[in-house]
Amino acid sequence: MPAKMTERDISEVTTSRLSVYLRCLTYLQSINQKTVSSHELAERFHLNSSQIRKDLACLGEFGTRGVGYDVSHLKQQLVHELGIDGTRNAVIVGAGNLGLALADYRGFNSNGFHIVALLDNDPEKFGRTSRSGVPVIDVSRMRDVVRDQQVAIGVIAVTPESAQQVHDELAAAGVNAILNFAPAQLRLRSGVKVRSVDLRINLESLSFYLKNSNGAKQQD
Amino acid sequence: MPAKMTERDISEVTTSRLSVYLRCLTYLQSINQKTVSSHELAERFHLNSSQIRKDLACLGEFGTRGVGYDVSHLKQQLVHELGIDGTRNAVIVGAGNLGLALADYRGFNSNGFHIVALLDNDPEKFGRTSRSGVPVIDVSRMRDVVRDQQVAIGVIAVTPESAQQVHDELAAAGVNAILNFAPAQLRLRSGVKVRSVDLRINLESLSFYLKNSNGAKQQD
Repeated sequence: MPAKMTERDISEVTTSRLSVYLRCLTYLQSINQKTVSSHELAERFHLNSSQIRKDLACLGEFGTRGVGYDVSHLKQQLVHELGIDGTRNAVIVGAGNLGLALADYRGFNSNGFHIVALLDNDPEKFGRTSRSGVPVIDVSRMRDVVRDQQVAIGVIAVTPESAQQVHDELAAAGVNAILNFAPAQLRLRSGVKVRSVDLRINLESLSFYLKNSNGAKQQD
Repeated sequence: MPAKMTERDISEVTTSRLSVYLRCLTYLQSINQKTVSSHELAERFHLNSSQIRKDLACLGEFGTRGVGYDVSHLKQQLVHELGIDGTRNAVIVGAGNLGLALADYRGFNSNGFHIVALLDNDPEKFGRTSRSGVPVIDVSRMRDVVRDQQVAIGVIAVTPESAQQVHDELAAAGVNAILNFAPAQLRLRSGVKVRSVDLRINLESLSFYLKNSNGAKQQD
């Protein structure tokens, strides 16, 4: 268990429902399904149908009684709502194992997101690139990179000990949205959104499966 | 967007609710709160109260009318339900940037989980260790490692092209629970639980925030 979680950290876990709906709709589109009801969405993908209706109503989507939602239209709406119909530039701070892995991670540097640089303080790394070609740049040039390349998102991939300083530097450079992979409690700033990623939650889910399969092999 | 999602991939996104409740209770315990109602949990952590009651009732937890759930008891119950009151051994396949980062990730190698080895096919890496001391072992010794160390969980941190082969080898070695970080569609086997991690969902959430903050700095 992480030593301390704030209410803020935890509530973030529930903010990804729109992305989940988007994945569901992308799948339904791939199998050529044209319409879907909130009940079918809920049944098929193990979601909560009243939550779906509530979330989509917030976007002004109410579906058609007896027909449901138009898959293609709703998907387009979600892409728009998520703000990924354009491209957002991002930097990754920390060109260690995690930073390099993220720079080359499919989905991080595509479809709406562009990783413009890895920032690091190790001069030996300057001028190198990740396997997919993301350049490593001196972290002291952060302000210039953020300004010149209109960077909207910063990814923290440094040690827990350095995470607060990197957070503060990103905020000072004008980056308003931060994805934090360092297992550290950050003192947050007004106007800067931080989303902390907890990879452990996935291990716990597998542990739950193992416990409930009682050691016997079984179909999911 | 990932090219293709199966229903199975998507439903997994919703299976982490017990872990979320555990984090909430760990937080409440840290501020010395003794009892909590489903309504307070829902309000405080932006969850769905009827979903909470339903999930906890499945565990045989109904709370006391007018008082709610006992925080400490419920936490203990969740730790037990998640099967993390003991220690589960795991291997990471792929000692590249991602595998090394995961081996040293706090929370992966602690409190209920123990990473016994990184497996790789590059002889130059054999005998090395990750920064935190996880040894790199020849992947051809997977069966022995799994048997000798009673490995329950396999983590796939190889390229998408190699992911299927690694999945099949893990399954053949008797590993029933797999955490897959490779953005690849895997052909699954009966009796083997695969959880695929989609790191992109976190970027989408930040994009949503940026879109809705309208470029202006604002408090979350």
